[in-house]
Amino acid sequence: MIESIINCKGAELTQSAKGSGPVFLSTRVRLARNLVSEVFPDRATKAQRQQIFSRCSASLASLKTLQGAAVFEVEALSELERKVLIERHLVSRELCEADRSSAVIISMDQSSSVMINEEDHLRIQLLRTGFHLKKVWSAIDALDTALEEHIDYAYSPELGYLTACPTNLGTGMRASVMMHLPGLVYAEHMEKVVRSVNQLGLTVRGLFGEGSDATGHIFQISNQQTLGEEEVAILSRLDKVLRTIKDHEINARYRLLESESERGKLLDQIGRAYGILENAHILSSNEAMNLLSLLRLAVDFSLLPEEFRATVDRLFIECQPGHIQFYAGHDFEPDHRDFVRAEKLRSEMRNLPPLNFDNLVQSK
Amino acid sequence: MIESIINCKGAELTQSAKGSGPVFLSTRVRLARNLVSEVFPDRATKAQRQQIFSRCSASLASLKTLQGAAVFEVEALSELERKVLIERHLVSRELCEADRSSAVIISMDQSSSVMINEEDHLRIQLLRTGFHLKKVWSAIDALDTALEEHIDYAYSPELGYLTACPTNLGTGMRASVMMHLPGLVYAEHMEKVVRSVNQLGLTVRGLFGEGSDATGHIFQISNQQTLGEEEVAILSRLDKVLRTIKDHEINARYRLLESESERGKLLDQIGRAYGILENAHILSSNEAMNLLSLLRLAVDFSLLPEEFRATVDRLFIECQPGHIQFYAGHDFEPDHRDFVRAEKLRSEMRNLPPLNFDNLVQSK
Repeated sequence: MIESIINCKGAELTQSAKGSGPVFLSTRVRLARNLVSEVFPDRATKAQRQQIFSRCSASLASLKTLQGAAVFEVEALSELERKVLIERHLVSRELCEADRSSAVIISMDQSSSVMINEEDHLRIQLLRTGFHLKKVWSAIDALDTALEEHIDYAYSPELGYLTACPTNLGTGMRASVMMHLPGLVYAEHMEKVVRSVNQLGLTVRGLFGEGSDATGHIFQISNQQTLGEEEVAILSRLDKVLRTIKDHEINARYRLLESESERGKLLDQIGRAYGILENAHILSSNEAMNLLSLLRLAVDFSLLPEEFRATVDRLFIECQPGHIQFYAGHDFEPDHRDFVRAEKLRSEMRNLPPLNFDNLVQSK
Repeated sequence: MIESIINCKGAELTQSAKGSGPVFLSTRVRLARNLVSEVFPDRATKAQRQQIFSRCSASLASLKTLQGAAVFEVEALSELERKVLIERHLVSRELCEADRSSAVIISMDQSSSVMINEEDHLRIQLLRTGFHLKKVWSAIDALDTALEEHIDYAYSPELGYLTACPTNLGTGMRASVMMHLPGLVYAEHMEKVVRSVNQLGLTVRGLFGEGSDATGHIFQISNQQTLGEEEVAILSRLDKVLRTIKDHEINARYRLLESESERGKLLDQIGRAYGILENAHILSSNEAMNLLSLLRLAVDFSLLPEEFRATVDRLFIECQPGHIQFYAGHDFEPDHRDFVRAEKLRSEMRNLPPLNFDNLVQSK
């Protein structure tokens, strides 16, 4: 069952790469919801968790958006399968460490997923390639409304949606956008950006959330606040900040290209990334991500045809440790993993044309 | 005039790469000789140096081996031309820093060269691709004998040939062999080898002699002693040691290939070298040499066809700073040199087939 999710070739960082372009990789909104008059999962007994699971899954099954969706009970998943779902951002680490009666429901196109008995009873998530805060919000809002017809949510007119952790209280909404910011990293402006973004009540994290590094120059930017402000207001503020960051990123890139010596260094980095991905026999996950980041930049600069953006985005996912092991059919030592990863990347690179530096787009 | 020497495409580390194989790059023998009853060059007046030059060049001109040879007076050479000749091992740094009336005579095939008014009146050199101590010795011995018909050498029946520096006294002979020893370097055995070789009265140095690094895993091994032993005895001792080092090198390589993890690391290094040479936009001379060394190893392991050994050996020479500037037609900053070097290597790499790891020869 899980194979169908993993082998879905359209599946990217954001399930389908169509619609992805420079800078913005994907948009994700998740809502934390709880059933009225049920204890929160970490306080619940085995029987209570079981009852929460039954009520939630029955209600979810009746939703049109989730017709044909796959249900995975965490207990039934192997370590490796859990890893793979985490790497696809379809489940959280917390869910995988949760007690019995925890599950995730994943729609066929992997754009919607609902976790049951994570920190909250329900964690509803919608994911879409590219930058689409409004669209994703309307879709998840519709899903939430549809679900509310079947479930009584724990809700306070004064505080809003009640959640297990006070940091989610109110809207229960976390909107996060994955951004590819190599220009700001190379120009050494990221620290400044993070500081400004934090001051605006937003959070910047690496690809795998809190405490993770910004491997592959990928950053997740999300709202911190859930209380005292309406969803639309939060999203509009986020939208504005993200567009500004995008402008800074594009400016940083073209400023790098303007200076002959910086341009040389950047093209050197891109060329080496291509050469190493094409020829290395040992590649750690970290190094692979950073090299793929440069390949994505090569697409942005027209050194590679646009059609290969989807390949690069897919490889970002498929070169993660869990995916590498999953394809090989078994668990193995990190050393061997690095060998298998390099082999996979060498073989994928055979489908890419050489970098065409004559095509370099040097200005906006 | 100097263009003909530099643009000679057969020209390698050792002028012609034909006959080169794994481990042994080239064999060089030089003799220090002085005219009787003339002061040594660094003690000579301008007029005396002029007279030494006249006598020597007249005598050399009459030799059959040097028919058609080119004569370059140091004073007439630009800085860049001197650099290029040093990089080809056709002249010494000392000659290039020498006072007036210093010159070098280079045979058409670049295998013989004679420096006039270096540290000694005459420094006769023969160079040949591969490992040919005996052949090179007979050839230079014949040249020396022929020259002695025209010149009275400063010679003491007790001490042998008299030289400006006592370290050359006796035979005046320095035989040196250029070896490519990546196996011993990767296996971290070079230090031990250098120690043993030193104990046997031999010297190990980098590509550019005393004090130079072993860039490209290339080592020059030569006799230290010139006094109290006949040439043939010195050469036979050197021959024996060099054959032992070659065996150690080959063993080190195949031991690396035997261990799965070491083999992986080595193939990774070779693959990356290929990919970087093919795609980088900035390459220092040092990095280029080390990458080319791995490409040479790829030929030894049959990952690249044998016919490309000559290309790699030629590039070892042609990626030196002087050559890079010479091809570009002018002097420029090291930064720009690294850019031009990378461009040259990218273009040369287009003629190479991809590495074929299925061909890997894993045992002797």
